[in-house]
Amino acid sequence: MRRFALFLVAVAVLAGVVAYLAPVSGRADEGAVPIFGIKIFPGYRDWRLISVAHEKGNLNDLRAILGNDVAIKAYREGKLPFPDGTIIARIAWKYVPSEENNKVFGRAQSFVPGDPPDWYLQFMVKDSKKYEATGGWGFAQFDKDGKPADEAKLKTCFPCHAPVKARDLVFTYYAP
Amino acid sequence: MRRFALFLVAVAVLAGVVAYLAPVSGRADEGAVPIFGIKIFPGYRDWRLISVAHEKGNLNDLRAILGNDVAIKAYREGKLPFPDGTIIARIAWKYVPSEENNKVFGRAQSFVPGDPPDWYLQFMVKDSKKYEATGGWGFAQFDKDGKPADEAKLKTCFPCHAPVKARDLVFTYYAP
Repeated sequence: MRRFALFLVAVAVLAGVVAYLAPVSGRADEGAVPIFGIKIFPGYRDWRLISVAHEKGNLNDLRAILGNDVAIKAYREGKLPFPDGTIIARIAWKYVPSEENNKVFGRAQSFVPGDPPDWYLQFMVKDSKKYEATGGWGFAQFDKDGKPADEAKLKTCFPCHAPVKARDLVFTYYAP
Repeated sequence: MRRFALFLVAVAVLAGVVAYLAPVSGRADEGAVPIFGIKIFPGYRDWRLISVAHEKGNLNDLRAILGNDVAIKAYREGKLPFPDGTIIARIAWKYVPSEENNKVFGRAQSFVPGDPPDWYLQFMVKDSKKYEATGGWGFAQFDKDGKPADEAKLKTCFPCHAPVKARDLVFTYYAP
């Protein structure tokens, strides 16, 4: 009887865990990107902040760059190249004026995150063996629904990052 | 002999801990802001991201808005007003072009965090009793060296935030 009660508790806990994880898994299960085989990392939105940026031009987005624990430690210690296990996440939102804020300030000064663009979420994953052909980094991009970018898009990542070889292919500096 | 060795290890560990904590304590000990009596919260730089923004005009900064666990939970649950214990941290850096990045892109498109301005670090602290006179919020501002802003400056916080009463005096929305 007692073992059956324990079994029921275990089932209930498991069901809770599955229900809790569902939204994240749902997105991650959308699939991996071509070439690098990277899926969305669950919990990336809870990672610590590396820096922020505004990309003008065609992109015109506001972005936050987050890192897993390995990334944050390497950044804070100024360690280059980044060690295997480093994962950098980049979230982008359209760069839009905040009408609400500007009403308070009495002028158009406040720009905030708008809708997620097609290049909403990107990852750089360091694995010097697995991704030897691309400087030790795997690259990934997903839209807001978790849909991976196509192969043509992913082929542009490494060539664009290659010029910053002195910074181990990473554009972003740590913002203190 | 063995106990003495243990003692030496304990002293070494303690020294390491003190050395590690020194920069944070040093800054926090600079003092509290006038009116609200708030000091810098240790570990705020590890808090999770709420959003990012670009303030143009006189400020012209890039900023990250971080929250403690209470803040993040309230934001994700859409809870308004924010519960007591909410702390929101705002870090700002001067908005500067990245010459390095722009060289890669072939045009001036990349703007990144530069030097910390005088308004480097701000906090909003929810305590509906303690800060009843200012909508339940305490306000604080520090420069990059942890020096608190003066009383005249701190008197400007509440009047500026008051117009966004419908959002419990908080300008920032959560960026998903």
